[in-house]
Order: sequence, then C-alpha cells, then structure tokens
Amino acid sequence: MLAKVLQSIDARRERALGELAELLAIPSVSTSPAHADDVRQCAVHLAGVLGAIGLSASVRETAGHPIVLASTSRRENRPTILFYAHYDVQPPDPLELWRTPPFEATVAKDENGFDAIFARGAIDDKGQLWCHVEAIRAWQDAGGMPVNLVVVLEGEEEIGSPSLEVFVRENRDSLRADLCVISDTGLFARGVPAITYSLRGLVYEEVFLTGPSHDLHSGGYGGAVPNPANVLCELLATLHDADGRVNIPGFYDEVTALTADEKVMWAKLPFDERHFFDELKLSSGFGEKGFTTLERLWARPTCDINGITAGYQGHGAKTVIGAKASAKVSMRLVPNQDPMKIQRAFRAALAERCPRNVKIEFANHGLSPAAIVPIDTPATKLAGEALKVGFGKEPAFIRSGGSIPVVGLMKKELGIDTLLVGFGLPDDRVHSPNEKMDLECFYAGTRTAAALYEKLALLK
Amino acid sequence: MLAKVLQSIDARRERALGELAELLAIPSVSTSPAHADDVRQCAVHLAGVLGAIGLSASVRETAGHPIVLASTSRRENRPTILFYAHYDVQPPDPLELWRTPPFEATVAKDENGFDAIFARGAIDDKGQLWCHVEAIRAWQDAGGMPVNLVVVLEGEEEIGSPSLEVFVRENRDSLRADLCVISDTGLFARGVPAITYSLRGLVYEEVFLTGPSHDLHSGGYGGAVPNPANVLCELLATLHDADGRVNIPGFYDEVTALTADEKVMWAKLPFDERHFFDELKLSSGFGEKGFTTLERLWARPTCDINGITAGYQGHGAKTVIGAKASAKVSMRLVPNQDPMKIQRAFRAALAERCPRNVKIEFANHGLSPAAIVPIDTPATKLAGEALKVGFGKEPAFIRSGGSIPVVGLMKKELGIDTLLVGFGLPDDRVHSPNEKMDLECFYAGTRTAAALYEKLALLK
Repeated sequence: MLAKVLQSIDARRERALGELAELLAIPSVSTSPAHADDVRQCAVHLAGVLGAIGLSASVRETAGHPIVLASTSRRENRPTILFYAHYDVQPPDPLELWRTPPFEATVAKDENGFDAIFARGAIDDKGQLWCHVEAIRAWQDAGGMPVNLVVVLEGEEEIGSPSLEVFVRENRDSLRADLCVISDTGLFARGVPAITYSLRGLVYEEVFLTGPSHDLHSGGYGGAVPNPANVLCELLATLHDADGRVNIPGFYDEVTALTADEKVMWAKLPFDERHFFDELKLSSGFGEKGFTTLERLWARPTCDINGITAGYQGHGAKTVIGAKASAKVSMRLVPNQDPMKIQRAFRAALAERCPRNVKIEFANHGLSPAAIVPIDTPATKLAGEALKVGFGKEPAFIRSGGSIPVVGLMKKELGIDTLLVGFGLPDDRVHSPNEKMDLECFYAGTRTAAALYEKLALLK
Repeated sequence: MLAKVLQSIDARRERALGELAELLAIPSVSTSPAHADDVRQCAVHLAGVLGAIGLSASVRETAGHPIVLASTSRRENRPTILFYAHYDVQPPDPLELWRTPPFEATVAKDENGFDAIFARGAIDDKGQLWCHVEAIRAWQDAGGMPVNLVVVLEGEEEIGSPSLEVFVRENRDSLRADLCVISDTGLFARGVPAITYSLRGLVYEEVFLTGPSHDLHSGGYGGAVPNPANVLCELLATLHDADGRVNIPGFYDEVTALTADEKVMWAKLPFDERHFFDELKLSSGFGEKGFTTLERLWARPTCDINGITAGYQGHGAKTVIGAKASAKVSMRLVPNQDPMKIQRAFRAALAERCPRNVKIEFANHGLSPAAIVPIDTPATKLAGEALKVGFGKEPAFIRSGGSIPVVGLMKKELGIDTLLVGFGLPDDRVHSPNEKMDLECFYAGTRTAAALYEKLALLK
C-alpha cells in the first residue's frame, strides 16, 4: 500500500508545490493586528483543504487567532496520532533584504545551487505542514489513513501560543491521542535526516530601570546622579562570569550533565565548526568554557540580551541622562531546569545587585521548560524507518537549541510524548529575510510523512 | 540713560514675551536633517529682527547650519562686546512627556507656582538670547548702544558647533572684540544670581559593535556566538570602578585639585542637597567616592551613557541576537584635561577590552576642553553690578557642570575672555520635556543685559 501512496505523491509534485505557493501567498503574520484577517483567511483555507481530503474539519475560535481542528473518524484498535503544526508566520521585515517578495513564493536556486521555494513561512512552518497535507491526501486517495488522525493547526505559534493551552484543555476528548507528531525542526545537515529528541526551554524577561524622575542634561547632572543606562549595563554585565557561565545563583543547580552515550553520538555528527562560523562571518565562536559548540547550543543553558532601549537613539549627539532604561533578556533552558525557579533567581539576582536609588521592575514574555523525549521508544524506531523511506538514510538523533513549548503542553495536558521529525536545513533562514524550503527536502519530507503514518499504525 | 532704557524694557514686557513665543515656534532642531529648513528659517527670522533694530545683520553660510552675524557700526574709544548665543535646540523627544506642545510656547505656572514660558529652547538658549535682543532694542531706541556690539548667533551648538571654528577664523576682523558675553548658564538658585567662572569640557563618542553578519535566532545560536548586546554591556560596565571612578587609564592624570579658596566659597553657597535630589525623586545621589555633590558636578570629570541601541525594541518578545549594538557615551572634562588625549584613552581602553571576534568602531560627536576664567577682573566686577540692577542682589561665583565649547574657541581664536552671565534656574529642565524659562528671570535677565552693556562701556 505504501508503494502506491508514494507513487501518487511523486506524481503530484508539481501540483503540491503550486498549492504550497497558494498557502504561502496568505500573509498570516500573527503578531500584526493589521494581518488579523489574513490569519483567519489562512485558517479557513486550510480547513477547506482538509475537508476536501475527507477529514472532518472546522475553524475553532479562541481568544486570539483561530485554530483549525480536523480528524478522521476514530476506528478502534488503531493508534491515534495528533499532528500539530502552525500556519502563522513571523513578520517579513526587514523587507529590503528580500531578493523576492516574501508573500509571492518563488522557486529559484539557493546560494549553493539547490532548488528551493522562497517565501516567509516556507520552512516555518507552512512547507512542512504541506508535506503532511500531501501525505494525508495520498493515503485518503488510497482508501484511508492507516491511523486515526487528529490535526491541530495553530495561528499563534510565533507569538507564544497564548490561546493553545486553553484550547487543548477544553478539547481534551477530541484531542485524545497516543502520540503527537510535529514537523517544525530540521535535518542535521543536507543528507543527514534527523529526529530531534530535545529542545531548550525559554524564560524571556524584560527589565525596566528608573532613576531620576525625568531626563536630565548630562552636563548639569552628570557625575552626581545614578544614570539608569550606566546601571543597566553594569547589571547586565554581571549576568556572565569570566568563563562565559551565567552568573545567577542556582542557575545551574538542576542542569544534568550530558551522558557518555550522547557525547559519543554527537562526536560522530558531521559538524563543520569552521563552516558554521564562516557562514556568520565570525572569526570564532563564544560561550561557556569547557564545552563544544554543539554542547553550548544543545545542552547548556544561556542568557542573551535580545534588545536594549536607553536614552537618545537618533542621529548624532544628545547630552542626556535618560530617566529610564530597559532590556529584553532571554534565557534558554535545558532539561530539568524549572522556568519559574530560573525566573525567580534572575529577578532576585538583578534586584539585589541594583543600587537602591534606582527602581527595578520586570515583565515576562515567555516561560517554558525544555523538552526531552526518550530515544529508544517504538515510536522513535518507527520514525527512523520512515525517514529512511523518505531520505534514504538512517536518521541522526539530535537536540535543538530552540524551543517548541507545545511539546511540554502536550505532555502536561494530554499525557503524550511528541515525535519531532522535521525537514528543514540549517541555512533555511528561519525568521530572516529569504526564508526558504529546499525542494528535495519538501519531496523527501512528504514521502517521510506518508511512510510515518503507515509505520505508526504498528504502535498499538 | 539706563533708567530710561529699563523703563522702556518694563513697558514692553508683554510684547517681548509674544515675540519670544514666535521664536520658540520655529523647531530649529539642529541634529535632525528633517528640520534643516526650520533651522535656516530661524536664522533668517533672527537676522530680520536684528536688522529691524538697526544693526547691520546677515545670514552667513557655513558647511552646516547658517550663522547670524550682526553689528553696530564701530566707534573708536569704546569697548567692543561680542555677544554670542545659539538659536538651535535639542530634539523634543520623548514627545509624550510634554504637558504642552514643545513648539507652541505656553505661559503657565510651574510646579512651584511661578509663572514660566514652556517650550523646547525656552531657556536653552532662545529665552536668554531674547533678553539680549530686548536690551539691545531698548538701547537702540534710546539713541544707540553704549558699546560697540558684534552679535554671533549659532545654529549648531547642540551638535558640537562643527562649523563655528572655521567661521570665527575666517571672520576674525569682523569679530574683533574686547570681551565675549554669553547668557547660556544660570542662577545658582531662585534669588541667587550668579556669574559662572568655569565650565566642564566634553568628549562625546559613539561606539558601534558588530558580531555575526546578520541577526540570528537566539534559540538556534544562543550560547555559541558572541552577542554584541551582551558584549556592549560588558564593555560599558568596565568604564567605572567600584568607587564610581572612571576606569580609563590616564583619565585623571591631568585633573587639578580644587583650591582651598574655592572650597570655602562653595561651602557658603545655599545648596540644599536634599532638595536637589527630592526634585529628581531620587532617594540619594551617586558618584565618585570622596567628593561632595557640588564637587562631583563642577570639579570632577564624568563618563555617562547617553543612549543605547541594540536588538529588538518593539512590543513584547523577539528571540533575536542582533548583529549590531551601539551606544553614545559622553565624558565631561574639568580644566587641564586634554579632550584629544581623553578620546584616545577611551577608544584604546574599549578596543583593548573588546573580544577579538566582535568588531568595534567609533564616531565622534563632540570634543571640547573645559573652560575657566579669572574671577577678579574689571569685567567680572561690572557684570556683578549689572546683575544687582537686574536681580537686586550681588552674584555668587559658581562653576557649571555643562560645557560651552565656544568659551575655549573665543580664547584660542580671538584671544578674549568670556563673561558667563545666565538667567536659568536649576529646575528649568534643559534638554528635557517641559523645558521652561521663568518669567521673573526673563524680565530680570533683560534688565541685567541692558545694565551690562552700559557697565561694560567703562571697560576702556
């Protein structure tokens, strides 16, 4: 049966690509109120597509952007797979850096001569979503899905999924499943398919300092008053020690060491460090002493300033001591770190280090634990076989430095693990101008998804 | 004669205020290219005003904003006074903190119940400039100025006077004078008129850091690449030591200690430190250990961050590692420090402390030495008498923490001292939202200026 399904997938390549381009043409930018209608239109479009394939599909309202919920009818003695993806995208700006319009998908060669489809959302996550749509369509055409399927397509992933938790909690029955599948990660490198077994968590904080009650002339007051911009730099500079370690009491308390098995496994990965930094035009990397680049990215927590706003930012000079200064600071967490505990430790450390004549306040923009799933499960083994069908190679087991909070949510609310089988490449420019999906990955990804649904039928 | 002049000044109060409001309505923001036409319009307006009073006035081109040059005809056996002021203003932002529009001058009570005129430039320097315009007008109406007068009005003071030096050098003959008079300082406090005998100098630098070649996702790269925002904070935090001293090698080498006379003089000033910090809603001050607040403001050099731009500054969260980060940093200098030497030391210290995988670059936005003038000169004595006419009290001799680079320029290029007789109050919010000029000071300042021109006629 799989052979026939794969054949029909291969025969439909051009149409699949054209339909993906239609999806990419909808500017479903979730963070922008101006695009709210586009986001909704995208949901309606996808519900229509899934309905046409024969799923029972609907657009569900939330407090924010809608969620598309679709499913096959449930048959007993078959495992149920919950496929999650998101249909919203990041803003396309800076627009001037795009070589082709972000919402007119364009097939072209990438910098290394490989065919790819360029558009905002091409790889994150519409292209990967469409691999599954094509796979589901082919199975439906061949007589029906080999598993019970529930599809959840979210429109708020890029803004921190504010409505998803409530939705999952309120629809637990419809969402009941044995396993969640997400394709929003990537290969380790071209030709090296991968299963991602761990993601970092996130604590995203904003720090606000207030010194004098209003902006002051730096001549008239400089030297005798606390300058919030100076204080901000001094505080943020305390966040790392000389060895690049995060200098917050208790920050590493819960961090578990890499296992010897993982070290061996990672050492075998074809990671070209020189190429990695050359791509970024960096003479060298930087990070916590005593760890390799992959360890720093995958297995060690971080603390990075994502934005600073202080004083005068216009052209030329203004001799001002700003009354306020603020910074956005995010910490990536590794398995076993508790986001709430880390948040408390971060706030306590900065508050304690802040001079008493400067007011310090905080806001939170994100709080999610790291995720780690066992490698040696039947599901993982079956996913490996599916990747071999799609890409012709056994997968590597890798971690990712990014965060997919929905993995933790599925565990907490539905009690299920998530399989992260993604089809992106490291140079796909996720969140950046000229985002793309490689066409080889698109086709191999579709075949992988088709094979995966057949393999996962064996779960029960 | 002075009595008649003062009488006509008093009679013209309302009109003077209305005409000052017209001047304040011109948004002559010199740092903003968008306001270049407004700056020029302001110069044309002022040349027209001075011409109408009977001076020979013209708008002179420079490489930047124009300079207004005006003069009376020179008569022998009279001293020549060079009156310098600036007609450009600081940007009004943050706009949302203004209670009245910055370029619609509004007369209202200030927080302590005193009448004042509120607008950007009200005290710095258009209001003080207008005191002199009114005084000159009154003398001209009464038959002519008692001294030879040269007026130089600059449009680039707030951006470091890049064109003034060339202008002065090329117009040495027209500018030849016995003394320069500037009203761009203030009283020590309400009811305590003052002559300012020393100003701090300024080195204003901008630091630019570049790490990776483009903005990166903080999940995918965080922990393994140098983050320019982190590095910027670490670098800027090194600029002070634990005692609040500026931590740049050689920074204090040329600084001279306060004389015993000055310490005695300052101790007698009615300085209410608690009130000073209460006005700023600060529980306490902050600065170099071992010095009083007045010493920190007037006699010690500083280093303050005036602005930082890094990463994402919009609403909410963006998980980005910005490719670039930059900061504006200014140092106030005291007499005997060499601005060029301090600039070199600043750049060398930061460049040396910057990690090798982050590029550091600099730009300069200002470079001027501190100024100090003798207290016991005939001119100073005459100015004291003029202040007594205007404000009814003998002046205090004070320093100022701000910088007026033109004082050094006049000494260097024309060989003349500068008399700093200003009419501002400490709470005038120079460079801040809700900048104002107190109406009492405006009227007393105008009377002082009128008396000053008569007194200075005795110089020769």
